[in-house]
Amino acid sequence: MPEPVPTLRWTGEQLRLLDQRMLPGAEVYLDCRDTAALADAIRTLAIRGAPAIGLAAAYGAVIALLEVAPDSDAFAAEVNARLDILSATRPTAVNLFHCIDIQREVLSGCSSRDEALERLLAEADRLFEEDLAASRAMGRFGAELLEPGSTVLTHCNAGGLATSGLGTALAVVYEAWDRGLLRKVFVGETRPLLQGARLTSWELSRAGIPVTVLPDSAAAMLIRSGEVDAVITGSDRIAANGDVANKIGTYSLSLAAAIHGIPFYVVAPLSTFDMSTLTGEQIVIEMRDREELSHAGGERMLPEGVAVYNPAFDVTPASNVTAIVCERGVISSPAELKDLSG
Amino acid sequence: MPEPVPTLRWTGEQLRLLDQRMLPGAEVYLDCRDTAALADAIRTLAIRGAPAIGLAAAYGAVIALLEVAPDSDAFAAEVNARLDILSATRPTAVNLFHCIDIQREVLSGCSSRDEALERLLAEADRLFEEDLAASRAMGRFGAELLEPGSTVLTHCNAGGLATSGLGTALAVVYEAWDRGLLRKVFVGETRPLLQGARLTSWELSRAGIPVTVLPDSAAAMLIRSGEVDAVITGSDRIAANGDVANKIGTYSLSLAAAIHGIPFYVVAPLSTFDMSTLTGEQIVIEMRDREELSHAGGERMLPEGVAVYNPAFDVTPASNVTAIVCERGVISSPAELKDLSG
Repeated sequence: MPEPVPTLRWTGEQLRLLDQRMLPGAEVYLDCRDTAALADAIRTLAIRGAPAIGLAAAYGAVIALLEVAPDSDAFAAEVNARLDILSATRPTAVNLFHCIDIQREVLSGCSSRDEALERLLAEADRLFEEDLAASRAMGRFGAELLEPGSTVLTHCNAGGLATSGLGTALAVVYEAWDRGLLRKVFVGETRPLLQGARLTSWELSRAGIPVTVLPDSAAAMLIRSGEVDAVITGSDRIAANGDVANKIGTYSLSLAAAIHGIPFYVVAPLSTFDMSTLTGEQIVIEMRDREELSHAGGERMLPEGVAVYNPAFDVTPASNVTAIVCERGVISSPAELKDLSG
Repeated sequence: MPEPVPTLRWTGEQLRLLDQRMLPGAEVYLDCRDTAALADAIRTLAIRGAPAIGLAAAYGAVIALLEVAPDSDAFAAEVNARLDILSATRPTAVNLFHCIDIQREVLSGCSSRDEALERLLAEADRLFEEDLAASRAMGRFGAELLEPGSTVLTHCNAGGLATSGLGTALAVVYEAWDRGLLRKVFVGETRPLLQGARLTSWELSRAGIPVTVLPDSAAAMLIRSGEVDAVITGSDRIAANGDVANKIGTYSLSLAAAIHGIPFYVVAPLSTFDMSTLTGEQIVIEMRDREELSHAGGERMLPEGVAVYNPAFDVTPASNVTAIVCERGVISSPAELKDLSG
């Protein structure tokens, strides 16, 4: 696998984020020293991707604590109030809530601010390392599913930029490339924010992997042409029945894959699985702003007053998913989920 | 129906085009007085849409003749050479070749430049009026297919801007709106050139019809939600077996419509039917430039060196098409095509 992408790093006093809004034009880093700045970075997608925003929130607990006056008696309450702010940034990805819950639990067991500082930071670091290890494991399990000479289609960015640095779907791509199994990667540009065009092609190029970008609407024709051996995506939340929430457009890819008989793989760490959500219908889908569709590079693309429908995610039913790859192995049927979560 | 959109008009000496590259920001008109300017306007999509570029080429024959010296003996050969230039602008839409062939035939029967001028202009005007009448007829036949309170999803621009002024798919929308059958229209933004966002929403707003724009990749989720009663698109070429070439993304919509059990209607005049093309596999699909994906509003969206897959059209198999509406009626099975063409 390549060197991890420097998506987010704790520098000792602050969280340094690679500002993904500026890619591929420029590599700009954003230093977050307070909760407001971090919440803004998550909301405006300076950092995005389900595992990455979870990790950012885990370090966010440390940032929150550093904002609390050293002599505060109510440090836990003050940190929890700031975690509420981070929790309200984005509704769909479960990793955000998962990491915040873990830090709340750590916090509840701390009797002093100094103890909390040490333990929250240690926990954030542990989650970070665990995510890197999970990427490596998912890469190994996922690569086993690919034949030599494979061409895969992915969507959005489920790469190092969406995680601690190696990715979910792209961890499989990196591992398959290292093993010489991969011919090339196609990625949908991923409207409206173009994470496929801007981010995935940037990070695959960085690793020397051939990548071709297409309009999302061309994927069905590409699959029909026989050029694609497998579709591989990440996920923002997997329900107990195996339904998969992921970037808008994923459901459409799953339909084309099913009709043309190619496998559709989802790659996600266990932290993405949400057993309290029974089916995909219960997943709250974030609706995003009109501006994402109405303007491009400062130019107006939509007449005034025209409405938009701009969901950030869709749900792919478990029946369209050939297998889910997680850090513990390959789940070829949603019914297996319950065993793994135990 | 609303007043026709001033897509193209012969002004007595030149062809005046509404420059669709400038919409919705500005209504700018482009006067074409020579073949090179017209060819450039077609190639760069100042005018687009299968019927509209056919009509532009029909008037292009008049422009070509006006470029020929009044005392030329070889006026027919000179016009034919210029029609070759227009013919090479775009490969997929059959209407372009159809209208050029008609004008070549007219030209072959003319014994003087003056006679040719009169007859080519009369033929272009006749084709223009025929297209308007076809739109009205398609609107009437298509509206019969919709229930009261319908919400439809369309793609790209199959409207007045794609024709002499009233459209194909949008002629049905206009007629259904007049009859009080229509609740609202959804349209995919239609990457990469955003004809749905820029053009269809502009022309429907102009007619007072509620329109909501979505990323193309969100259409499957929208259809699954039950919000859409029918998908209605235009076409750039219909093969003898009923396979339909249309804007990239149409095939994907047809898959979602089929899986969720809603009708998928194609609306196109008979000039779009190409009996010499036996199946969709024989249709040449235009591949367009990398720049359409790599830049947005002047901003770079793709790292240097990354390849693109950018087909302008895809082919929807006849089996996914519920019915084709033309100016002679509704074709509910591709097998009926042969009778109508006789």
